[in-house]
Amino acid sequence: MPDPRFFKNSSPKALGELAALSGAELARETGRDMRIEDVAPLDTAGPAHISFLDNIRYRPRFERTQAGACIVSKKMVPHAPDGTHVLISSNPYKSYALVAQAFYPHLLCPYETPPASGKGMISENAHIHPAAVLGAGCLVEPGVVIGENAYIGENCRIEANAVIGAGVKIGIGCIVGAGATVTHTLIGDAVRIYPGCRIGQDGFGFAIDPAGHVKVPQLGRVIIEDHVEIGANTTIDRGAGPDTVIGAGSWIDNLVQIGHNVKIGKGCVIVAQVGISGSTKIGDYAVLAGQVGVAGHLEIGKGARIAAQSGIMRDVPPGEEQMGSPAMPIKQFMRQVAALKKLAGRNTDKKKSS
Amino acid sequence: MPDPRFFKNSSPKALGELAALSGAELARETGRDMRIEDVAPLDTAGPAHISFLDNIRYRPRFERTQAGACIVSKKMVPHAPDGTHVLISSNPYKSYALVAQAFYPHLLCPYETPPASGKGMISENAHIHPAAVLGAGCLVEPGVVIGENAYIGENCRIEANAVIGAGVKIGIGCIVGAGATVTHTLIGDAVRIYPGCRIGQDGFGFAIDPAGHVKVPQLGRVIIEDHVEIGANTTIDRGAGPDTVIGAGSWIDNLVQIGHNVKIGKGCVIVAQVGISGSTKIGDYAVLAGQVGVAGHLEIGKGARIAAQSGIMRDVPPGEEQMGSPAMPIKQFMRQVAALKKLAGRNTDKKKSS
Amino acid sequence: MPDPRFFKNSSPKALGELAALSGAELARETGRDMRIEDVAPLDTAGPAHISFLDNIRYRPRFERTQAGACIVSKKMVPHAPDGTHVLISSNPYKSYALVAQAFYPHLLCPYETPPASGKGMISENAHIHPAAVLGAGCLVEPGVVIGENAYIGENCRIEANAVIGAGVKIGIGCIVGAGATVTHTLIGDAVRIYPGCRIGQDGFGFAIDPAGHVKVPQLGRVIIEDHVEIGANTTIDRGAGPDTVIGAGSWIDNLVQIGHNVKIGKGCVIVAQVGISGSTKIGDYAVLAGQVGVAGHLEIGKGARIAAQSGIMRDVPPGEEQMGSPAMPIKQFMRQVAALKKLAGRNTDKKKSS
Repeated sequence: MPDPRFFKNSSPKALGELAALSGAELARETGRDMRIEDVAPLDTAGPAHISFLDNIRYRPRFERTQAGACIVSKKMVPHAPDGTHVLISSNPYKSYALVAQAFYPHLLCPYETPPASGKGMISENAHIHPAAVLGAGCLVEPGVVIGENAYIGENCRIEANAVIGAGVKIGIGCIVGAGATVTHTLIGDAVRIYPGCRIGQDGFGFAIDPAGHVKVPQLGRVIIEDHVEIGANTTIDRGAGPDTVIGAGSWIDNLVQIGHNVKIGKGCVIVAQVGISGSTKIGDYAVLAGQVGVAGHLEIGKGARIAAQSGIMRDVPPGEEQMGSPAMPIKQFMRQVAALKKLAGRNTDKKKSS
Repeated sequence: MPDPRFFKNSSPKALGELAALSGAELARETGRDMRIEDVAPLDTAGPAHISFLDNIRYRPRFERTQAGACIVSKKMVPHAPDGTHVLISSNPYKSYALVAQAFYPHLLCPYETPPASGKGMISENAHIHPAAVLGAGCLVEPGVVIGENAYIGENCRIEANAVIGAGVKIGIGCIVGAGATVTHTLIGDAVRIYPGCRIGQDGFGFAIDPAGHVKVPQLGRVIIEDHVEIGANTTIDRGAGPDTVIGAGSWIDNLVQIGHNVKIGKGCVIVAQVGISGSTKIGDYAVLAGQVGVAGHLEIGKGARIAAQSGIMRDVPPGEEQMGSPAMPIKQFMRQVAALKKLAGRNTDKKKSS
Repeated sequence: MPDPRFFKNSSPKALGELAALSGAELARETGRDMRIEDVAPLDTAGPAHISFLDNIRYRPRFERTQAGACIVSKKMVPHAPDGTHVLISSNPYKSYALVAQAFYPHLLCPYETPPASGKGMISENAHIHPAAVLGAGCLVEPGVVIGENAYIGENCRIEANAVIGAGVKIGIGCIVGAGATVTHTLIGDAVRIYPGCRIGQDGFGFAIDPAGHVKVPQLGRVIIEDHVEIGANTTIDRGAGPDTVIGAGSWIDNLVQIGHNVKIGKGCVIVAQVGISGSTKIGDYAVLAGQVGVAGHLEIGKGARIAAQSGIMRDVPPGEEQMGSPAMPIKQFMRQVAALKKLAGRNTDKKKSS
């Protein structure tokens, strides 16, 4: 059960209401009026809690859960323990997400849940340039620094010690996390920037010269479209001339590096510690798993999926799954893994038999 | 010799005293009353300094050191230059650590060396919520922001521009580094968090959906047990429902990513730029070398050792050493490296001879 | 064309003047007096703009550019569209850099362009120790914290919420980025530290011990020589006894980890997310591409070039190109890649034919 020191639970809800808002279906109508007080993991949930099973690995926990209700896929229904009401969903994880959002709406982006009053609060210990503009309902915490002609839309939350540079434009209902810095950037609505992000500094642009590298002024911006999330301590350099662009609905994890001029499409998923070199384009809905590296000036096609730690040195066709460093189609990689294993085993056998 | 602008040396000590406190043994009794003023590296030490030899690579420096005294293992004694008193230790590096701690106690965690007066100092330029509680002897530097109902134990040091979120609990004698941010977290005693750490933000939790990824509220915490160190700019996401846990005495280096629900055991060593995906468990005393990546929902056994840059895609048995991406037992990896080298060599030979 | 909200363009310039300052040669004398207003990328440039072509990949954009002038190498001249004046350079990227610097001098380090008045501006919301010394012409933004006996040279810019520790010395015309922290460090002239850098904290130094790792006090410094750039959220630990040194003119990208006692030579290029373990030496002008990992106590020779994601486990001879994890000479790596591809293909063929 979430720690009340950190999470404020809204009022209890009927199980039927939770089914409706989460797109799930009650296995037995008798549970419709059951009162659910909170969400909880399978192994700690009690009779007034709702839980979920998404990963088959955790089925044993489901079979012995004490949860009053549980969201599962259809084929898991027979495994439910007697005391647990079952909600059937084609996407249990998404259904759980919607239920948990209903209990904890304040964890959402302020875009989805603007402060009721429409009134914000600007700390007197924030340092805001007189020529900056803040929309109604903004919350600005202590130590924040906002530069000249910055423009921040309604209902944003700028957390403690964040720095917003001159001229930056931020849309409605965004969060800029504690200690983050944002310069030379235009941001859409409902964008969430996590603590310690560095966005808009000039990238690694220089002409190599024996007498000393020559700095190339970086004259582009960062454009962040609507509903983007950018993880903690991630760095996004501004464009060199063109812009660096993060497409609508893309989610970027912690400690990711995105070089100048990179274009990321819509709905992409970029997992922690990925590095994308300058001027590369990532197609819509592509997924880059953890610690992937991508060379510069490449194109990764729409819907491509790159396995963790892969090193991309060539364009990747749309929809293709790749793995390895240098990366290749995943089946080819698996064949190579198997062939090498066999070869090394044969060599060992030879030694043993000789 | 340490730069006095940055390091304050305590008073000189007799060599016998240093031997006693460091668990080392004087090779010759005659040195017992020798006065040692400071520690120094082998190649810059003088007659009033004590140095150490731990890595055999540096033996030539030992053979020509000017150090008045040197801590070494037994088998290095014959290589000592004439003018150097030798202290024999079964663990020279640990003995040196204890000697250096005696000369520079202020570099330790405040837990080990609380301010003599028991009185702290709260900067008038810190922004502390009236409902936060700070123990005696705390040092709070300018620009620090501490939220509602945060609780900070005695003798902590909160460095400039750090941000402590509402409800966070910190034990006795901890350090929170400059510019770090900590939310949704409970911290034990003698914990050291380095500058720029991001701890307790919500992790990469969402249900993928064509109409837009659906945020899964992250309702767990981060639990950091006693005597943990967490390096600069490292990120630790809070649990999704369960907690993220860092076990007692574990040391985590810089720029590490730890996902939601990860459980790290006691006494682990996690080297720089490692990434650990959500819900994975790391057993006690495991060592993950630099840039290792670990997939989600895995178990790495107690005392396992993972070589640098390895990619862990399956559970690792206790005590096993693994290497490679995907990782395998280290002997198997070395066999594969050798087999591939041989194969490529043969191909080349064929080309040459044809 | 650069967004005027972020970039202030200096006055228009004659094409002949731009040729002279950039070391380029006008293909046709008729363009000498042409008035150029700005720089722009090939595909968005208009008749009053100057652009450049450096990467052959973008030749089609050059062939249809509307730019009034374009800097190219000699062999590209025949491909120029009719309306575009051509400037010939042996290093078009460097020539462009110099042209762009002429239009946007304020983007340079303050060392190159000190404030005209010689007068700086210290925010009244910065927290500067009375015993710190700031040279003339310094700009100190709000939320900055500067410690006792810190010394900052003339014409430096210390951005919002940066923290400079006690005793730190910074030369002339440097920038310390927003939210960066610098302790135990001596910095030369014209150094640029990007937002969120962590410089000078104590490194990962401890003696492993079953009863609890024993901290080794880190008694060295970080020495940063002239004209160095250090990217966003990069971490550089101070020396353990010796110093950590970054040689003159070296450029370090974002999210790089540099361990204690590392010595980086002059003019090196260290790309994003590289990790360099303790006590390793990198020779002058070496290039480490993205995500490279280097083990401790190694020597990488002068001018060596390491491909992205490589793992260096042994010394690298001067000038050698290496790739792979573990790394090897690049030709050998490529042979192994080819041999493994062939082997896996053969195995597959066998299966198909059997």
